[in-house]
Amino acid sequence: MGKRRDRADGPPFSGEAPRETRDRSSGQGAPPPAAGLPGPAGSPSRGSAKTIGDVPMGAGDDTANAGIVATRYATVAEPPNELRLESGERLGPMTIAYETYGTLSERRDNAILVLHALSGDAHVAGRHAPDDKRPGWWDMMIGPGKALDTDRYFVIGTNVIGGCSGSTGPSSTDPKTGRPYGTGFPIITVADMVEAQALLLDRLGIERLLAVVGGSMGGMQALQWAVAKPGRVHQVIALATAARQPTQAIAFNEVGRQAIMADPDWNNGDYYGRGVPAKGLAVARMIGHITYLSDEAMHEKFGRRLQDIHDYSFTFSADFQVESYLRYQGLSFTERFDANTYLYITRALDYFDLTRDRRSLVDVFRDVTSRFLVMAFSSDWLHPPYQLKEIVGALRATHKHVSYYEVQSGFGHDAFLLEREKMEGVIGAFLASGARTYHFAVAGPRGTAPAASRED
Amino acid sequence: MGKRRDRADGPPFSGEAPRETRDRSSGQGAPPPAAGLPGPAGSPSRGSAKTIGDVPMGAGDDTANAGIVATRYATVAEPPNELRLESGERLGPMTIAYETYGTLSERRDNAILVLHALSGDAHVAGRHAPDDKRPGWWDMMIGPGKALDTDRYFVIGTNVIGGCSGSTGPSSTDPKTGRPYGTGFPIITVADMVEAQALLLDRLGIERLLAVVGGSMGGMQALQWAVAKPGRVHQVIALATAARQPTQAIAFNEVGRQAIMADPDWNNGDYYGRGVPAKGLAVARMIGHITYLSDEAMHEKFGRRLQDIHDYSFTFSADFQVESYLRYQGLSFTERFDANTYLYITRALDYFDLTRDRRSLVDVFRDVTSRFLVMAFSSDWLHPPYQLKEIVGALRATHKHVSYYEVQSGFGHDAFLLEREKMEGVIGAFLASGARTYHFAVAGPRGTAPAASRED
Repeated sequence: MGKRRDRADGPPFSGEAPRETRDRSSGQGAPPPAAGLPGPAGSPSRGSAKTIGDVPMGAGDDTANAGIVATRYATVAEPPNELRLESGERLGPMTIAYETYGTLSERRDNAILVLHALSGDAHVAGRHAPDDKRPGWWDMMIGPGKALDTDRYFVIGTNVIGGCSGSTGPSSTDPKTGRPYGTGFPIITVADMVEAQALLLDRLGIERLLAVVGGSMGGMQALQWAVAKPGRVHQVIALATAARQPTQAIAFNEVGRQAIMADPDWNNGDYYGRGVPAKGLAVARMIGHITYLSDEAMHEKFGRRLQDIHDYSFTFSADFQVESYLRYQGLSFTERFDANTYLYITRALDYFDLTRDRRSLVDVFRDVTSRFLVMAFSSDWLHPPYQLKEIVGALRATHKHVSYYEVQSGFGHDAFLLEREKMEGVIGAFLASGARTYHFAVAGPRGTAPAASRED
Repeated sequence: MGKRRDRADGPPFSGEAPRETRDRSSGQGAPPPAAGLPGPAGSPSRGSAKTIGDVPMGAGDDTANAGIVATRYATVAEPPNELRLESGERLGPMTIAYETYGTLSERRDNAILVLHALSGDAHVAGRHAPDDKRPGWWDMMIGPGKALDTDRYFVIGTNVIGGCSGSTGPSSTDPKTGRPYGTGFPIITVADMVEAQALLLDRLGIERLLAVVGGSMGGMQALQWAVAKPGRVHQVIALATAARQPTQAIAFNEVGRQAIMADPDWNNGDYYGRGVPAKGLAVARMIGHITYLSDEAMHEKFGRRLQDIHDYSFTFSADFQVESYLRYQGLSFTERFDANTYLYITRALDYFDLTRDRRSLVDVFRDVTSRFLVMAFSSDWLHPPYQLKEIVGALRATHKHVSYYEVQSGFGHDAFLLEREKMEGVIGAFLASGARTYHFAVAGPRGTAPAASRED
């Protein structure tokens, strides 16, 4: 375990986006700082971040960092070309927040899209300023010489629609009313997130991705990419996820939603500019947070140790370190995350089901052309290995190229954000082999892959 | 699975006390209907309940029921003999609610004390009236010919102190103020619960129990009995429990407490006679409820089935059966349970640690004289089998008489309330063998067991 894991009340070891301070302005209904058509991103000041202090979990140990990066914004789906959502509603214009690391090759054949989980964002790697306390949420995997090697690949991070970190979501201004959408925002699904990402890639001039990569909800997006856009994805890396949201996860999400909606400050979602439903959101986050850890990890990290006292207080104070830690996690989350986004994103998770149209998973995967790396984590009880194996089994039943890897880890669901050493070799090798086969699998000059490109 | 388990929104398959309607009057600060020194209970109208309709899980399949019973009330620890609590505070007078089934033998050697879990009560078996919809919470195990055979044993159920079902708790009237205690009620512990039960047994004239039996928090009380009152307990049956509250369980309880305390209707615990903090309590119950089930049980029972709709609503309604079920569970719980009691009882759970004084568990068990049956349930993730095995290992290390039995069940923690067929033979045989050795283990005529009575 890294040394950071020994602190009971510290901010890391968090569910999805281990970061203490965040610029929330773009996520709270204010217009994003910039929008428009960008070209491939400029080179970050690579390697310079290596000397910055307080390097977090796993990052920068033996490799350079992704450097100083900035979030960019693209506007897509402008009327009358709004995105038609899975619900039938239309949404547009949409702002899509994104970041890039590394350089897009001339042949545009080295782009990797990294997809975030529930509370993540576009800031996948690097730092926004030299004095940033923490880098992006998957910095351990992305940078020169790392698994997602920015000397070789052009890595893109992007905030999902419905989010609160720069992309259009319930806290954004509804152009029709001039006020935040609130619960007037349409229900979005994982499929809608992917459609919006495809529009972003169109704007970036990237027809076909070398890979999509994601864990948890990011893994669901990655699978959705493979199924919905088979010609645009050469490789899929899906971590700690499932082909459909399992019942128990729906249950936990529903309790979180009920906690938020029970908070009188939620006010039916109309709270922007007033007090936010912090207590309800904190409870929701605490519930979620427990599901990201494991019995074993909690026992090792906290046990029954008391927080700054020598004996029970015989009160309802946070006597135990684990109580203090959870309260901190809940509170700090409310400073960076929008309660309505929590409702919308958990709903998207719960609606996710590749077999929703009643086809079998084997049928669903029949026309995919991507190569797959599916990775499970032994102590993940939110998405236990059997859920990943179900994906692998269905892919193998249709003779797809699929590798399965089960990481032995005590860290629970969070392991995909922590187990750098156990993941980087497998992911790095898989990406490198995909880079070698990318053009074999491509028929047309712009990279549209025909069905015949399937590799068994 | 029994037929009741197929209903998504029905009340059974609940955490601890599967009952739809409850008489809450005695739990909400009103004085109990009766108090005083009772003798052994009268015979219930045994067998007559067999013909009552709507027989619940497992009960009455092939055996008679415990009949019509009434809750009784004893007053103990009257000033100046208040109970000195583990916190150092004093509590008294206390009302203790209890029920009895079967007949106390002349030698007073057939008494079994059944201890309830978080949301249980004294109503362990039988019905309060012929038209009662549901019997007591462990009716499947208690009655003529059942594992706790009321033709042979005198079974006692009792509500813990701090509870809200007849025993003194935060909703009771504080004699000093004439108003409900609220959060002025002292913090109680599992050890305090046991001390109060010992006072009840004194009043019933029972010096030494044939057995204490309990699951979950009831199992903690059973272990505490063995450690704190070694001369008074011949046998201990501990199910789905632990020698100390595990970290993950503390975490879930803390989130439940935060949900209650976040509800403005909680009002620092002073809500009696006004609106109760129903939303917060419902969220707390929903969290707890998930921990009583299992991933497998939830998947089998609900899967991703929709509730009364053919397709997603694309709203935040309870589209999924599991959402509807949880909302129902949360709401119905608020109609029968006191929010402050939820705080106090979960605190007692979290404080439970037989090794709190830093002795090893082996040392803690060194002077116990009881025979033990320890039972784990394979899919219980609140108290997984390894936590029960720890108890067994420590008992064996000091050469105690201990049997371990692991029930294969998909029902999770709730299994101890459901798996009648897999439990009754083991429990029945263990009790019968204890009944045969009871007097060998007793030195004095009143049943005080010397250390020499230990059976290896």
